[in-house]
Amino acid sequence: MTSPEPSPDAKTDAPGSPSAPARIAADLVITHCTALVHDEHEQIGFVEDATVVVREGRIQALTTGPVDLPAAERIDARGQVAMPGLVNCHTHTPMVTLRGIAEDLPVEQWFNDVVWPIESNLQDRDVELGARLACAELIRGGVTCFADHYFSMDTVAAVTAESGLRANLGQAFFSSQGAEGRERSLDFALRHRDTAGGRITTSLAPHAPYTVDDADLAATARSAQEHGLPVHLHAAENRDQSDTSLARHGRTPIEVLAGAGLLDTDLLIAHGTGIMERDLPVLARARGRVAVASAPRGYLRFAWPTTTPVQALRELGIPVGLATDGAASNNSLDVWESMALTALTQKFTGADPRRLTSRQALHHATLQSARAVGLGERIGSLAPGRAADIILVDLTGPHTQPVHDLAATLVHSVRAGDVRTTIVDGRILMRDRELLTLDVPSVVQEMNERMPALIDRSHGRRIQDYDT
Amino acid sequence: MTSPEPSPDAKTDAPGSPSAPARIAADLVITHCTALVHDEHEQIGFVEDATVVVREGRIQALTTGPVDLPAAERIDARGQVAMPGLVNCHTHTPMVTLRGIAEDLPVEQWFNDVVWPIESNLQDRDVELGARLACAELIRGGVTCFADHYFSMDTVAAVTAESGLRANLGQAFFSSQGAEGRERSLDFALRHRDTAGGRITTSLAPHAPYTVDDADLAATARSAQEHGLPVHLHAAENRDQSDTSLARHGRTPIEVLAGAGLLDTDLLIAHGTGIMERDLPVLARARGRVAVASAPRGYLRFAWPTTTPVQALRELGIPVGLATDGAASNNSLDVWESMALTALTQKFTGADPRRLTSRQALHHATLQSARAVGLGERIGSLAPGRAADIILVDLTGPHTQPVHDLAATLVHSVRAGDVRTTIVDGRILMRDRELLTLDVPSVVQEMNERMPALIDRSHGRRIQDYDT
Repeated sequence: MTSPEPSPDAKTDAPGSPSAPARIAADLVITHCTALVHDEHEQIGFVEDATVVVREGRIQALTTGPVDLPAAERIDARGQVAMPGLVNCHTHTPMVTLRGIAEDLPVEQWFNDVVWPIESNLQDRDVELGARLACAELIRGGVTCFADHYFSMDTVAAVTAESGLRANLGQAFFSSQGAEGRERSLDFALRHRDTAGGRITTSLAPHAPYTVDDADLAATARSAQEHGLPVHLHAAENRDQSDTSLARHGRTPIEVLAGAGLLDTDLLIAHGTGIMERDLPVLARARGRVAVASAPRGYLRFAWPTTTPVQALRELGIPVGLATDGAASNNSLDVWESMALTALTQKFTGADPRRLTSRQALHHATLQSARAVGLGERIGSLAPGRAADIILVDLTGPHTQPVHDLAATLVHSVRAGDVRTTIVDGRILMRDRELLTLDVPSVVQEMNERMPALIDRSHGRRIQDYDT
Repeated sequence: MTSPEPSPDAKTDAPGSPSAPARIAADLVITHCTALVHDEHEQIGFVEDATVVVREGRIQALTTGPVDLPAAERIDARGQVAMPGLVNCHTHTPMVTLRGIAEDLPVEQWFNDVVWPIESNLQDRDVELGARLACAELIRGGVTCFADHYFSMDTVAAVTAESGLRANLGQAFFSSQGAEGRERSLDFALRHRDTAGGRITTSLAPHAPYTVDDADLAATARSAQEHGLPVHLHAAENRDQSDTSLARHGRTPIEVLAGAGLLDTDLLIAHGTGIMERDLPVLARARGRVAVASAPRGYLRFAWPTTTPVQALRELGIPVGLATDGAASNNSLDVWESMALTALTQKFTGADPRRLTSRQALHHATLQSARAVGLGERIGSLAPGRAADIILVDLTGPHTQPVHDLAATLVHSVRAGDVRTTIVDGRILMRDRELLTLDVPSVVQEMNERMPALIDRSHGRRIQDYDT
């Protein structure tokens, strides 16, 4: 283990010494857990009987055995695994409001007949309630950071701040909104970046190459360079989109991004199941930090013929983060399920049961997801100096025993409901399954009161057409 | 609704009348739930503010609104769905002991290098502890009945009786055991059938056509006919097995079963992902009650090229029940996950997002699973006269709100951990997540003590070879 122990000062200073506490007391000490760590080659390992010391929002030390250190708060995490909080690398949090409303449909009907007509009714208050419910679900499922791409993002930013979660937020736009859409996305990104004590970062958020034209994509790339902002968009979501792009423009969606200069920015591509063989050298030449977010449940649900080409992307050194997309297509914001399904679908579509081992899945869930959302140096590992975004996962349930291979247990047996405690920047957001920053029943009640107006489609409007 | 109300007698007799309680008091009344019911065409519907009255282990009535009836026990199930307990139609409960021990391997290595060598060490006590842990997991996950196919089944029967669960049990055998294997399977089936107050039924349990020869399969069919016993076996598990069977014997595994007379018995076929086009008319001619159990997680994990052909089987009227297989290949006994994955993989492999709707998935989870284990008249529906095998599922968690389509919520958003209460034959086995018949920590402790001896493979033995 490379983790330093607490400094000798910290270990020898007596608790309660009059001048000491402000200097040496930890904010939080977690004891008796098994800690998931990364070695210097980023291989995943586990430290038994670990103690995690948190001070000023960061991990100060990860050591073994007892630590004689005063602490404002202590958690005895016997029988639990401490691991980096999960990251949901692509979602639309307010869409939890539409969970289950458009089932068993192809994606074009899902968009055109249900989701986009309803979204033309969206009010800020709907977004606020949806974001609040989503944050509750994320915290309960051990997600400490999410990348959100939606509308009314000032509202989502306010809810994020209130919830205590970390997020990368982007105000989505279409070219059909004119220059105003793109400008609002930039304005949002500049106003909110590094707010909420640094927990909120921002991205420019064009919707997709099939809804944002080349000129707007190029202008987005220029804004990103000028302001040092990342870009988060949907691209090559499925094979149909790539085929249509080739037929219409002679270029794949990835080639469109390259032509617009977006591969020279820090770019997060959602889905990428339509990434083609010819796109791989294009991605290899990218000068920006390019990453892909994979949300495999939706690909199965929509019966898309391919999934994110994780192995090919790994060979290019492109991080693939785990995601759920919105709950209107995924039915939950359960990143544990995304992790398991990523492993299972990679094995199945690659016709190779050795593909995507549990340790690789955990690498996607930790460092790769952190990099995908531009926080590769701040989160994703329980290493001293990193943000104290920590979850405690209970392994005492019969469904997680016995443990022969803890990585396999975490990927294939643990369920979101096994997360007992969720911590962001050292602050406890859920303790023993109790949410400390959000009140679910009041949100659900008001959401249901507003629902008839929200889901009314009699007007015949939609915010956009799905026509790739 | 076709469900009769409680009889007028029951409604008008005053509680506490000296002679009345033994005659009229219900054993259990569940109030204020939403109940999943089937109409006369087996379409799934939901009854709001339902009351379920249980007496002598059976559902006496399902009605709406308050019921003024004395009851030994009442459960206020506000915010919860009452539905038939799930059925795990094919598992090997004691294999939870090997959960996670053989990951990321092709099926032949999984069997030959790990599972079958370890199983040559199995002692009754290992089976007992495994079965106990499995029953705890099943009860916690809302499973009220399972079909088990393993060794040392006297022990599994004893644990089943103790746990309070319902099960169909079969003592597995290979032809390599000589006539003794088949005889033990029959002896077990006859001794245990209709024991544990009728909660235990039995099957003959040849392992599979690739490990049991034609003569033993034919003898099994004759025993089944003679004694009125069903048969439970693995067959056409994957496409490789079907191809090999064709190459070696000129017959598919299903044709082998037909030739042995097994399609004229009540037959439960595990997996069937290798069922071929030419098998469909053979299955259509079956004179017995033939059913298939599908455990899709394992098919993804082993990267098998096909999944159970649910739609083709539906067209033949063959029930497809949900299953997990053993936890050594499935990592859990989570039938909720099997239900969701059945829906998702049918959409994906059928290239049609309309395939296997949520209501169809719930039909598989209820009546079809009940039929698959030979209990189509006793369980699978909350109808008066049926066994009171009931689970209460909490919908107040943020991940299950709001509810636009309760069927979709149950199939795609609910998790096993949302089951609050599990009831079999009217007896509460778990109340508010607390297990009432099993003690998990003591089981896990002894299991871990015994583990080194169990998993030792230095002897080089295995109980059987995987060579289809």
